Amino acid sequence: MEADHIALNPSPDNAIAWHAKQLWLLDQRKLPASAEYLELRSAEATADAIREMVVRGAPAIGITAAYGVVLAARTAYAAAGSGWKSAIQLDLGRLRDSRPTAVNLFWALDRMRGLIDSLDDEADPEPQLLQEAEQIHAEDVAANRCMGELGAALIDGPTGVITHCNAGALATGGYGTALGVIRNAHAAGRINKVYADETRPWLQGARLTAWELLADAIPVTLLADGAAANRMAQGGVGWIIVGSDRIAANGDVANKIGTFSLAVVAKYHGVKVMVVAPTSTIDMQVASGKEIPIEVRGGDELLCCGAQRIAAEGAEVWNPVFDVTPAELVDAIVTEKGVVLSPNVEKMRQLMES
Amino acid sequence: MEADHIALNPSPDNAIAWHAKQLWLLDQRKLPASAEYLELRSAEATADAIREMVVRGAPAIGITAAYGVVLAARTAYAAAGSGWKSAIQLDLGRLRDSRPTAVNLFWALDRMRGLIDSLDDEADPEPQLLQEAEQIHAEDVAANRCMGELGAALIDGPTGVITHCNAGALATGGYGTALGVIRNAHAAGRINKVYADETRPWLQGARLTAWELLADAIPVTLLADGAAANRMAQGGVGWIIVGSDRIAANGDVANKIGTFSLAVVAKYHGVKVMVVAPTSTIDMQVASGKEIPIEVRGGDELLCCGAQRIAAEGAEVWNPVFDVTPAELVDAIVTEKGVVLSPNVEKMRQLMES
Repeated sequence: MEADHIALNPSPDNAIAWHAKQLWLLDQRKLPASAEYLELRSAEATADAIREMVVRGAPAIGITAAYGVVLAARTAYAAAGSGWKSAIQLDLGRLRDSRPTAVNLFWALDRMRGLIDSLDDEADPEPQLLQEAEQIHAEDVAANRCMGELGAALIDGPTGVITHCNAGALATGGYGTALGVIRNAHAAGRINKVYADETRPWLQGARLTAWELLADAIPVTLLADGAAANRMAQGGVGWIIVGSDRIAANGDVANKIGTFSLAVVAKYHGVKVMVVAPTSTIDMQVASGKEIPIEVRGGDELLCCGAQRIAAEGAEVWNPVFDVTPAELVDAIVTEKGVVLSPNVEKMRQLMES
Repeated sequence: MEADHIALNPSPDNAIAWHAKQLWLLDQRKLPASAEYLELRSAEATADAIREMVVRGAPAIGITAAYGVVLAARTAYAAAGSGWKSAIQLDLGRLRDSRPTAVNLFWALDRMRGLIDSLDDEADPEPQLLQEAEQIHAEDVAANRCMGELGAALIDGPTGVITHCNAGALATGGYGTALGVIRNAHAAGRINKVYADETRPWLQGARLTAWELLADAIPVTLLADGAAANRMAQGGVGWIIVGSDRIAANGDVANKIGTFSLAVVAKYHGVKVMVVAPTSTIDMQVASGKEIPIEVRGGDELLCCGAQRIAAEGAEVWNPVFDVTPAELVDAIVTEKGVVLSPNVEKMRQLMES
């Protein structure tokens, strides 16, 4: 088992791993204090891990769910043999119900379901499903590399940038969306300063983005979410660069709570807004952001900070964990298929049909 | 001493008390987990308490500093007798240096210094300085009551409101500025819902505003700072109501970090912005917000949440604790002398000369 641990050296680019016939997730709830993997042996455990945010970030959730389907198929084939396609349905539903906002989850499950439909009832489905999940994973990394190039090319630098939440290697199959652009542009000298909002309530910026950038030797300066306006007012910030959990057909962007505020403030200051996401994040089935279901999580995420109680007893909480930034506030959507400037319905349609 | 404790029953309206010849401050660092008073016996201890945020909020800092001058005079007169006016200077400097942004501190010290200049060298200065400090305290409470009426009258309700940080009884001599308006308007049926931003990094909203409103039996719903834009987008919020630490001669408003973002987002959504502050917060010596010194506090306030470390090791921090909202984003400044709508240089001058 020594070899197993060496093979699973924790890094931002290795947060999701298929190893020794199981799914391993770097437990993002414990970062940066400790970097530990959870081994998942069933689709049910995988759905729980998504719901409980062991893994988060839209592309990472999609990839994780694809591997979860492999585990579901193994269980179903062992239990039901040729009846595995019926037996897998409960687990597919569990995976589908694990988070509501990130569309990559449904996209990955639909792709796996398409393969399931084409498979033989009699043969063990695991090898082919695993190949497909690994393909989804590899395509995401390749897409991120591509987006890193395309996004960095938009930046007339050197300039400072602000990012919100974590849209990095941790949130994807590797390399990252927004942080992929930042990696590429930093290496090319187009970015001279990276500011990370701490991103309450889950503090992905303070915990994950800082950890990930520092692992890449890119210096990062943390801000309270409310300090971004002050920072922009002082100049030197050319771009806000964020990821997305779902993009509507008109270019409206759902992303981590606080993104909308950041985009409004950016527009006020003449700072540009770049959204970096693979086309698996674009949901042409929803006409506008108004139709995107926004997950509201438990109040404890605000009443407490980690394990520490902070808020007064008796306070109510409203804890929506995403918001929708209207397309009018977005200067560029960067995908692996190309860049859409000033997105609208027509441009989004052209991108998706290209 | 039993009677002392009964006389100092902790409540938001009793956070600063002169009692048994000493200054007592409700320790706001420990709220809401515990409500404990610190007894301060010297100006140096008072300056430390201001710096370390035992007490915070612009009017409360001014009142505390005025009582600190009483303690300084006692020490100086005991040590130097008729030379007390020279002996008091070091302590006056300590109080002046305790926080840089809130102008009420300098206003209160200047008022106490004016009285010091007029006092007899030979007589014990403590009785008259105490009377002046108590007068400053009482005037602040009266001003808050007046602002509560004036501000509430602006609200065509019933509507929801969002407040940021704590501009309540805890931040003043009692009753509160922004929360004074909310108290009055809630009682009058003009406000049907109060949202409090949690206000990172110090969490005054989650810790103090929630505690204070609940003590008044006003229900409060907490939001992450980044969620205010989403909340405004959903409608039902008529006003943002905040306090201020310093208002420039042109109506620019310095307030807790995050206020500027809130005001930009409010303008985007057609939500009005009300700033509630006594005229002691208005600094006609600074032409615009650009000249207001903005305090930058230590990084630990962001690297940690209370005692708990949250951020990745190696991350840098930028922790400005105030920002400046341009007058163009402010719909009303409510003072005890009257209301200024759409503030500008001329209107501010008229108010202060009235």
